[in-house]
Amino acid sequence: MSDLLETVRGLAKKTDSKIVLVVLDGIGGLPLSPGGETELASANTPNLDALAQRSELGQLELVGAGITPGSGPGHLSLFGYDPLKYVVGRGALSAVGIGVKLSSGDVAVRGNFATLDGSRTVLDRRAGRPSDEKNAEIVARLRVAIPDIDGTPVEIYTESEHRFVVVFRAGAGEPLGAGISDVDPQATGVAPLTAMAHDAASERTAALVNAFVSRAEEALRAEEQVNGVLFRGYSDVPHFPSFDDAYGLRAACIASYPMYKGLASLVGMDVLPVEGQEDALDGKLAALRDNWDRYDFFYFHVKKTDSTGEDGDFSAKVKKIELFDALLPQLLALNPDVLAIAGDHSTPSRLASHSWHPVPFLIHSEYSRKDVTARYTEEEAQKGSLGLRRGTDLMPLLMAHALKLNKYGA
Amino acid sequence: MSDLLETVRGLAKKTDSKIVLVVLDGIGGLPLSPGGETELASANTPNLDALAQRSELGQLELVGAGITPGSGPGHLSLFGYDPLKYVVGRGALSAVGIGVKLSSGDVAVRGNFATLDGSRTVLDRRAGRPSDEKNAEIVARLRVAIPDIDGTPVEIYTESEHRFVVVFRAGAGEPLGAGISDVDPQATGVAPLTAMAHDAASERTAALVNAFVSRAEEALRAEEQVNGVLFRGYSDVPHFPSFDDAYGLRAACIASYPMYKGLASLVGMDVLPVEGQEDALDGKLAALRDNWDRYDFFYFHVKKTDSTGEDGDFSAKVKKIELFDALLPQLLALNPDVLAIAGDHSTPSRLASHSWHPVPFLIHSEYSRKDVTARYTEEEAQKGSLGLRRGTDLMPLLMAHALKLNKYGA
Repeated sequence: MSDLLETVRGLAKKTDSKIVLVVLDGIGGLPLSPGGETELASANTPNLDALAQRSELGQLELVGAGITPGSGPGHLSLFGYDPLKYVVGRGALSAVGIGVKLSSGDVAVRGNFATLDGSRTVLDRRAGRPSDEKNAEIVARLRVAIPDIDGTPVEIYTESEHRFVVVFRAGAGEPLGAGISDVDPQATGVAPLTAMAHDAASERTAALVNAFVSRAEEALRAEEQVNGVLFRGYSDVPHFPSFDDAYGLRAACIASYPMYKGLASLVGMDVLPVEGQEDALDGKLAALRDNWDRYDFFYFHVKKTDSTGEDGDFSAKVKKIELFDALLPQLLALNPDVLAIAGDHSTPSRLASHSWHPVPFLIHSEYSRKDVTARYTEEEAQKGSLGLRRGTDLMPLLMAHALKLNKYGA
Repeated sequence: MSDLLETVRGLAKKTDSKIVLVVLDGIGGLPLSPGGETELASANTPNLDALAQRSELGQLELVGAGITPGSGPGHLSLFGYDPLKYVVGRGALSAVGIGVKLSSGDVAVRGNFATLDGSRTVLDRRAGRPSDEKNAEIVARLRVAIPDIDGTPVEIYTESEHRFVVVFRAGAGEPLGAGISDVDPQATGVAPLTAMAHDAASERTAALVNAFVSRAEEALRAEEQVNGVLFRGYSDVPHFPSFDDAYGLRAACIASYPMYKGLASLVGMDVLPVEGQEDALDGKLAALRDNWDRYDFFYFHVKKTDSTGEDGDFSAKVKKIELFDALLPQLLALNPDVLAIAGDHSTPSRLASHSWHPVPFLIHSEYSRKDVTARYTEEEAQKGSLGLRRGTDLMPLLMAHALKLNKYGA
């Protein structure tokens, strides 16, 4: 836990005020050529402009100077968890990415289906890249064959082709360690390796993994192609003080994509159902309205600003920004005590990828000072009174503006 | 290693892009009287102005708020090494300052020549302040007398008057510790002290120092005045992850003065020969051009902006800034992917010394956002989009702009 989070935790108090944090995924951009305008600056955003004129702005660096954040670290930073400290590994992110809820102490493992011969020699590390349907069929069979191992619950999830994820649940028992060696030999013509524990906390995990390998081979004996499993990319789940524990907040997640729902559930938010296709802005707004009285904090995720940037489609990203702008009045009509708009990282169309550039952020509350900013853009945010900050500063600021923090010291 | 450097190290990738970091030594200034213009603002710098208008600017604090950096900590910060963590002691800085290349595990010691009587009582702790020529003659004699001690290579360097430096080389053996007590009693009328180790890692060093004292006295027995040695100011050399290790960069140093070449070699840069007198800007530019294809990163040092500031000569500092401005087009003609201009500390002529004021810095790359800054000056840098930052943020930013960093997390 970062020092500031620990401090905030000791000061948090419950009040009736409501905070809405809108995350415009990948919102920060770049001009198409040096000196030009970014996507945000190019967009026609009368509602965002008006809001910016009565809000405070600044820039957030989610992980650190020059570091391009993945979605996981970017969101953890916005939620107040130092992403250099709360590391969520590949296995856990894969699980979270398909919507699995993980708890502290669990271990998530990425697996490949493989083809073995009769003497357990690996013939194909990807089992001939089976169809997603075949994958799902095999997973269903393994779920029946391996519901638990010696009392430890085992969950198996399909990803796609040869990829699947296994979650070993620690439950009320000792946390499972992830310090174990790979089963995947990363070569054909040899047998799968036996997983070995690197530390005492991982010995039970190694035994579980090795038992899983044997029982899966047993269950898939009749299969010609998909008859073995290989593992690498184990990750345990760090202990997150939940939103309730850290901030005293009843928090809800309003998002459409599994990865973001998974991240929110990792920090203890309730994930609300959202109706509608894809980004489903109307469905998200309805979820917000319908649950307004039940929560103190809403994480409201807008995905398409990132996807269009990843596609390198400048004008599509501009349109998605304008779509959000059109929705904003209805969001403001709910009259949140604190409204923040931020991004989890920049995704300039120019780079067609995430980038290290800081994201503009905005805080609107009754307790804001006058700011000079005229628009919610990168250039205006540079002038904003909130300055250039680490992403983990956002939550303490939101808590403060919502009058949910006691004084520190006498 | 700071967390960010460790993170950057895990993300660094090799590409063909080229970074040039120009360090205008002591560049930050002050007005001669409050409200006036600084040296940078007074200088006529059409090329720097034009560059600033298509670059991002900000301010760097090299060590921390209010801390006036020495050249060592200032440079280490620019190179990405937290100067509060990577402490290079006086002995090592003295050695580096006269151009000695140090490696991790070596110990450098500052020595004084002293006058002893026949019963080893210290009569003069500075041996009557011998001439530099006498110092060099004595050092030459000691080099012959003490080439090594029990196999540990010993190097002896003249500084001036009564001062010299000894380097004990760890070589492939155990690193030498510097936790030993002084030989210098800091008083006359008593004998030199016996060096004692404060920790196990320094026991060999203490034995080396005591052996050096005996053998030096033996070799100088015939001298009347310069016939003893006193030691204090031991320093070991911290382990620096090299530029190659930390950043995956083939890095070159283009500097004229020994101290800067020594610092660059400490972090594993190749030190390129530079033709010409004193600051030798033309020679530096030639070295840059001639080696352009061989390196990914160039540290280009300009010294005179500091020396003139140290002299308290405002107009001379202005002229040195204008000299660099005149050179800038030739540097830009090489078309570096990333060009940064910064200082290792401020040296206002008004103070005739280093100062704590942040230094303006500039990053020029294809992936910069539009900035509002019109000139490379302290005042404009305050408005810059890069904000006020720690010096150690610079290298991650340069790596990012050069597209040499992978994403952090998924």
